Amino acid sequence: MSEILVVGSLAYDTIETPSGKVERALGGSANYFSLAASLSAKVRVVGVVGEDYADSDKELLRARGVDLEGMFVAPGKTFHWEGAYAGDMNEAITKKTELNVFEAFDPDLPDSYKGTKFVFLANISPDLQVKVLDQVKSPVFVGMDTMNFWISSKIDDLKKTLSRVNVVLINEGEAKMLTGAKNAIEAAPKVCELGPQAIVIKRGEYGFLMYVKGEGYFILPAVPVADVVDPTGAGDTFAGGFFGYLAKLDRKPTFQDLKKACMHGTVLASFTIQDFSVRALAKVAPEALETRMGVYLKTVAHA
Amino acid sequence: MSEILVVGSLAYDTIETPSGKVERALGGSANYFSLAASLSAKVRVVGVVGEDYADSDKELLRARGVDLEGMFVAPGKTFHWEGAYAGDMNEAITKKTELNVFEAFDPDLPDSYKGTKFVFLANISPDLQVKVLDQVKSPVFVGMDTMNFWISSKIDDLKKTLSRVNVVLINEGEAKMLTGAKNAIEAAPKVCELGPQAIVIKRGEYGFLMYVKGEGYFILPAVPVADVVDPTGAGDTFAGGFFGYLAKLDRKPTFQDLKKACMHGTVLASFTIQDFSVRALAKVAPEALETRMGVYLKTVAHA
Repeated sequence: MSEILVVGSLAYDTIETPSGKVERALGGSANYFSLAASLSAKVRVVGVVGEDYADSDKELLRARGVDLEGMFVAPGKTFHWEGAYAGDMNEAITKKTELNVFEAFDPDLPDSYKGTKFVFLANISPDLQVKVLDQVKSPVFVGMDTMNFWISSKIDDLKKTLSRVNVVLINEGEAKMLTGAKNAIEAAPKVCELGPQAIVIKRGEYGFLMYVKGEGYFILPAVPVADVVDPTGAGDTFAGGFFGYLAKLDRKPTFQDLKKACMHGTVLASFTIQDFSVRALAKVAPEALETRMGVYLKTVAHA
Repeated sequence: MSEILVVGSLAYDTIETPSGKVERALGGSANYFSLAASLSAKVRVVGVVGEDYADSDKELLRARGVDLEGMFVAPGKTFHWEGAYAGDMNEAITKKTELNVFEAFDPDLPDSYKGTKFVFLANISPDLQVKVLDQVKSPVFVGMDTMNFWISSKIDDLKKTLSRVNVVLINEGEAKMLTGAKNAIEAAPKVCELGPQAIVIKRGEYGFLMYVKGEGYFILPAVPVADVVDPTGAGDTFAGGFFGYLAKLDRKPTFQDLKKACMHGTVLASFTIQDFSVRALAKVAPEALETRMGVYLKTVAHA
């Protein structure tokens, strides 16, 4: 088992969906990622929170063995995102983004983090992603996420980050935007031309599409969930499950390893969407995970 | 091997997509269905065409061994549909529908058709669907399609048809519209409450979702196709491949039979979308089909 370093947002989210509303609930890519990945591996978090960040929210990660030495507390308030889902549960409508302490975030890694072999650069500014990666001595496997905002505002920095990672995990709309492709099938190899050996395109309720250079496509649906409460964090949970699976194996991933990692990520994401914030994900027990994987394998069994 | 009876439209389509435009090209659910199904089984067509219907278009089916005794020629012009795709290739925008000879269509089955065991009621008015089904003596396996127009205008007739079929094959949007469900996972069992033992929800580029009472879900993606030229007829091709596979087996289908039938339908549909009208589908050779199935199996291989 290897460690995973993740850099990303630690946030409070205000979210409205057809199922209800939560105010300033725990969120942020690094929280979802860490809760998912820590089920299989040891996670090291890099991020910044404000003075308002609750001790109980730190404790949630600590209880999962997550290393918080790289979680900095800065004067001011924690990053706050406000969003809503209406009709199309695959895409959030952002109502407000208050960067707060995130605005001046300049990640400086604790020495104990610098030898981490598995690194995930969650959705933050691409120049910050590179800054973090530069501080890791000799990573074995590096992944990243990004979003439409960085594709349109910092494409040059983004391409630099892309050229240095092994895998990129992004949404379908972002993959098309990044490449000008008409669909995910066309977009995937085009993203790999920018550097990554592999891409995983996250498709919400339709599951995922992976493409690996020299290997080809691997495509599967999501776990069937009828009652979707809040899709926020599903993609970050997927990434956490994906990396957790690979770090547990602790080797240069094979195509088959990457496939299993995708399936592990999909199954974990199916919990996240069943409640607001990190509530469902924080409660996932190994037995529930195993049962859900059984449901998933039955759903896609065709041989 | 058993015969399949299909009732549906025989049409000329004018279609515009980002790849170009065709005028009055061969189309209609019964044509796509028959070309797909006739690769595995003997097909009997019930439908109506106008005096303008080309002999070469009849010959296309005859060359595949399709029985055209139930294809009636009526005074007037053939059904004409005009549609376009822009951006979202999963849904057509209808620009014009000229029913022409279809308006007075009152299907009267040839005696030789009345003992057919496999029956597919393609997307036509639900009262006509029942009228056809009433003339078949003791069908073994009956399927149907429908569309938003009948869901909103003839829901009572539609429910009568639904109560008499074994499987319904519809689009995701239609499944949600019919049940009021928020997503396909929730919609599928609700459709089965209306009668059918099984439902196959067609999801365009995202593949399909099948639900079978007492068995559960079976979900897989579509075959990866980067260059989609014209999605028209993909759903009818799927249905033709699905029924062709089952009729070839010639038994009450098991869950495993239905799974394989879905995969066969998906693979055939991947040809249809690669050219306008029935062009690509009409040319599918057994070797190409086998190769494409190999690509598909590789794409979804996870064990």
